[in-house]
Amino acid sequence: MGEFELIARFFERPVRRSPLGVGDDCALLQPALGMQLAVSTDLLVEGRHFLSTVDPQRLGHKALAVNLSDLAACGAQPLAFTLSLALPHVEEAWLAGFAQGLFALADAHGCELVGGDTTRGPLAINVTVFGEVPAGQALLRSGARPGDDVWVSGSLGDARLALEAFRGTVSLPQEVFEAARQRLERPEPRVALGLALRGIASAAIDVSDGLAGDLGHVLRRSGVGATLALASAPQLLAAARSGLQLAPQMVEQLVFAGGDDYELAFTAPASARDAVQSAAQRTATPVTQVGRIEAAPGLRLLDAAGQPIARSFGGFDHFGAS
Amino acid sequence: MGEFELIARFFERPVRRSPLGVGDDCALLQPALGMQLAVSTDLLVEGRHFLSTVDPQRLGHKALAVNLSDLAACGAQPLAFTLSLALPHVEEAWLAGFAQGLFALADAHGCELVGGDTTRGPLAINVTVFGEVPAGQALLRSGARPGDDVWVSGSLGDARLALEAFRGTVSLPQEVFEAARQRLERPEPRVALGLALRGIASAAIDVSDGLAGDLGHVLRRSGVGATLALASAPQLLAAARSGLQLAPQMVEQLVFAGGDDYELAFTAPASARDAVQSAAQRTATPVTQVGRIEAAPGLRLLDAAGQPIARSFGGFDHFGAS
Repeated sequence: MGEFELIARFFERPVRRSPLGVGDDCALLQPALGMQLAVSTDLLVEGRHFLSTVDPQRLGHKALAVNLSDLAACGAQPLAFTLSLALPHVEEAWLAGFAQGLFALADAHGCELVGGDTTRGPLAINVTVFGEVPAGQALLRSGARPGDDVWVSGSLGDARLALEAFRGTVSLPQEVFEAARQRLERPEPRVALGLALRGIASAAIDVSDGLAGDLGHVLRRSGVGATLALASAPQLLAAARSGLQLAPQMVEQLVFAGGDDYELAFTAPASARDAVQSAAQRTATPVTQVGRIEAAPGLRLLDAAGQPIARSFGGFDHFGAS
Repeated sequence: MGEFELIARFFERPVRRSPLGVGDDCALLQPALGMQLAVSTDLLVEGRHFLSTVDPQRLGHKALAVNLSDLAACGAQPLAFTLSLALPHVEEAWLAGFAQGLFALADAHGCELVGGDTTRGPLAINVTVFGEVPAGQALLRSGARPGDDVWVSGSLGDARLALEAFRGTVSLPQEVFEAARQRLERPEPRVALGLALRGIASAAIDVSDGLAGDLGHVLRRSGVGATLALASAPQLLAAARSGLQLAPQMVEQLVFAGGDDYELAFTAPASARDAVQSAAQRTATPVTQVGRIEAAPGLRLLDAAGQPIARSFGGFDHFGAS
């Protein structure tokens, strides 16, 4: 099967909202009047971002999900995406599965494939996603202010727990492993919550490299610091909530520096607590307050007794040793 | 050097036209009123699209150039781009050269880097480019009509000639090789010509996989056929114009099926010949009429005596054996 047949068979579908989709030199997008276009791109490489054995359907889902997660963190409504795919060889069953997982998530968010590129090469997937947000209303990393609450959505650390199980550094009961693996391989981007937080959150980021590292980006961009409560960790790890016994330090490491969570971390004024809870309820997304923004730069951690504790969590660095 | 330091050192520059650039979850773009956003993406993989020995400055240029060429083929004005980079290791001199070549071309076209992603992995480069075009004025592949002339810009086949020299299948005088190598490694996207052809050309495509193959896309999308004159080949190959003696069949193969040309192939009504020539002059871009659109589907070739000749040129297929 050649490049053009591959595209026609698996990736060419009529567009419904964009003026022009797959099949010309460019796709054409038309943001609505008063809207800005939010753009994000993520490159996934085998061995670094996914295991070679991963189910292709889950991989198709994840390749788009990690990008939709960036739109969510900006409060943008998904619109369209492009897909670049380097494949070591053409395997029809793999491509069919990949496309199925990709389009199922795309359809769930009304996000259409408008263009792309395919080539032979070491397996790599690059998705660039486009969303709409009213001019001036995007959630940025730079808006956190002293006194704001720090919130996170959903659960943190379970994806990394699954990765550790794959690596053999931890042994998990089958049910716990399957649930954690689902979090690793099939993250659900928090698009609805991101949209609901427009006008409420002062800053937001998606947690892809670990909460401590990603919140650090918000703190630096906003010129502030924060204190987080280590005691919130067991409530944030789904595996711990479901009864799995792990060393407290491991739970904290997973929750604050796990990575691959694709949850939202966001800040909002204390006066907006009811509005945050209401946005969470409307979108059926659990949220947890985990700390407070302060004027003094840096990230501080408090132990269960409310005492400062020295602990450094490096974020996941794609050029690091992790 | 970690991922974030790498981005900050080599790829983070203030944006001047876009509302938000590198450093948040998304970039923000704001097309002007009445404008559509043209989007294109290209994935370049080592060994397939460039040699491992290529000068990084030329590679940075080419990674953006091949995308700007797609904008040119749509008649779109470059606006912004994202860059995803998988690197086997961090080599500062290489990155500095790559960034220099990339930004020199970007600046020449007023096209700013607004976002991206970097990771460790087998060397791969994905650029997604954004341009503006007035709604309804994009040059498409689908507009060719019987009676239209077929035109190409600049020279064809020299990039492939350089590749053949690298492969050792042809031996070239040093000067000819250097000129051809420049065409392979440092193509100049025909952005100005693409803009000048708005309202004049009936269809356009950029020649990346060989003229015969790429024109074939125009013919299929337009529901028409075409006849090309093989005799135009020696005039289109710069190396032949400069006196290099090659077998006629090789010249024809290079010109009609070479690939990596990044010239524009376009169609226009015969009544627009003066307008085409004027657009070419205004943008200092040579153009050559190479054939005619006809109602009968398919691509026909005429020999020097004007007789039909049976010859099949496959386009370059990124999953083929080429």
